[in-house]
Amino acid sequence: MANSLTQCLPGGRPLNPPRVVVVGSVAMDDIVTPTACRSNQLGGSASYACVAASFFTSVGMVGIVGSDFPAPFVQRFRRAGVDLRGLQVVPGKTFRWSGVYEKNMDIRRTLKTELNVFADFQPALPEAYIHAPFILLANISPRLQLHVLDQIRNPRFVAADTMNLWIQTEAHHLRRVLARIDLLTLNESEAREWTGYESLSRAARRLLAMGPRWILIKRGEQGSRLFSTQGLALMPAYPLESVKDPTGAGDLFAGGLVGRLAQGNRIDEAAIRRAMQAGSVVASLGVEQFGLERLWSVKRMGVDARIRDFRRMVGWR
Amino acid sequence: MANSLTQCLPGGRPLNPPRVVVVGSVAMDDIVTPTACRSNQLGGSASYACVAASFFTSVGMVGIVGSDFPAPFVQRFRRAGVDLRGLQVVPGKTFRWSGVYEKNMDIRRTLKTELNVFADFQPALPEAYIHAPFILLANISPRLQLHVLDQIRNPRFVAADTMNLWIQTEAHHLRRVLARIDLLTLNESEAREWTGYESLSRAARRLLAMGPRWILIKRGEQGSRLFSTQGLALMPAYPLESVKDPTGAGDLFAGGLVGRLAQGNRIDEAAIRRAMQAGSVVASLGVEQFGLERLWSVKRMGVDARIRDFRRMVGWR
Repeated sequence: MANSLTQCLPGGRPLNPPRVVVVGSVAMDDIVTPTACRSNQLGGSASYACVAASFFTSVGMVGIVGSDFPAPFVQRFRRAGVDLRGLQVVPGKTFRWSGVYEKNMDIRRTLKTELNVFADFQPALPEAYIHAPFILLANISPRLQLHVLDQIRNPRFVAADTMNLWIQTEAHHLRRVLARIDLLTLNESEAREWTGYESLSRAARRLLAMGPRWILIKRGEQGSRLFSTQGLALMPAYPLESVKDPTGAGDLFAGGLVGRLAQGNRIDEAAIRRAMQAGSVVASLGVEQFGLERLWSVKRMGVDARIRDFRRMVGWR
Repeated sequence: MANSLTQCLPGGRPLNPPRVVVVGSVAMDDIVTPTACRSNQLGGSASYACVAASFFTSVGMVGIVGSDFPAPFVQRFRRAGVDLRGLQVVPGKTFRWSGVYEKNMDIRRTLKTELNVFADFQPALPEAYIHAPFILLANISPRLQLHVLDQIRNPRFVAADTMNLWIQTEAHHLRRVLARIDLLTLNESEAREWTGYESLSRAARRLLAMGPRWILIKRGEQGSRLFSTQGLALMPAYPLESVKDPTGAGDLFAGGLVGRLAQGNRIDEAAIRRAMQAGSVVASLGVEQFGLERLWSVKRMGVDARIRDFRRMVGWR
């Protein structure tokens, strides 16, 4: 029997819907990098994306954890202002992932994935969420992404993230997701793999034809490219001296992007560019420490300062 | 006995000094890429840099070729408006270089370097060049770069390019060059190798301390970074679908940069940023074909159109 966290931990949550609803995984990660390792670290695409979005607007999480999920993690989400009415707590173990980064962090090997309570996850949106104007379908099975889309009423903007696993195993469902979203984010290698095109602009045109108005191709340290029928927008990455833990960078980018977009009133290319800057900056802050460590202590002011710094460096006015 | 080319091929060259003087190599290259090869291709750092600069301003070449240097190459330079009064023609063979590009063009192996007439090259500047306001010391031995600097009177702006070979073999001379220039361009790996710092900003600070006001670190497909005591400017690369021949990309970038800078009146960070955009665009046009093939046929209008396109993609106003 699932409980949403407001039942478990009643608090002062407002009744109004959050501006952004994020569905994704909430996980406990074991991470090994060339210089360090961490066990039982708070992870998962929804965790990273919600914290990133929370810098800019109100955000509600849709996810599931087991009864072993540590109370301090719940408190951290709450302190960050994340609305947890959509986080189910069920008997059993929380989703666990472990991975190792090799060389200069370029290569990631998954050591272990234990779905646990995630195996039977059926996202059920609280009443307050179904009118949220901005939806981020963070990286989870496209079947679950569709399940969330079925419950949402008239969203203003829907973004989805995905990964090679779903392209390989659930391309059919993923294509149905694409038909119903405004923006898709994926890695450069995933765009190539899915479409069979080496050229990123051909790959993007192929994906645009499946429905989304924008295709955002992530290229790690090389930044990202936003494709639409209007053309191409180039975005460099915020320059970093050292990366401690790249886990969740894509989720932070997507969360920051949708959060920043929801903070404004317009949805056009200029607004998405500004939102990409915000996403890039939140991701850059995140990867400088393990997991979400750095982001718990950063204030909105710190994020804004780095965005200004980024704009100055690239020469945007 | 050296002849300058105005003596060999008198033409309608104006007597006034060119805005930009470029010293570097003029070569005949044999190039092998994964898909094609070319023999006896016009190459060399001065060739690439002069043609790049010629899109924006008047440019004079300082270099040396042998009596085997094909007349059609001379005519092409002239048609591009390159002032050849500083190009010596001497008995013997022209400098020859051959290299092979492997994999996806990332790795370049030099097969052969024959200095030939370049071995005893002593750059001698024609009278008309010594008051040129903009100087580009393209990639040659720092000893020769110093020799040119000794002949120049009160230049307004001096840029120099270099490479790992000179860092390894003539660091002492290179340091003397650095003390006398405004801007140094070099690759990311070269900046790291020279300074011993993995961090690019630490490497740049070390190089800035040697004299130049600006250190421009080239990062290939990842764009470039301009360091000064004012901070960091980030420049993405113009996005390319396919690269046919990366030879000379760095020389084109440096030539386009100094040419564009000389076209304007200001020398400040904003002007250098605009000049970097121009350099990046000229380089992007160049590498789309072998050698200088593409650039012989491109008009200034075509370069400007791509610069506008680049500015729109990055979101610069």
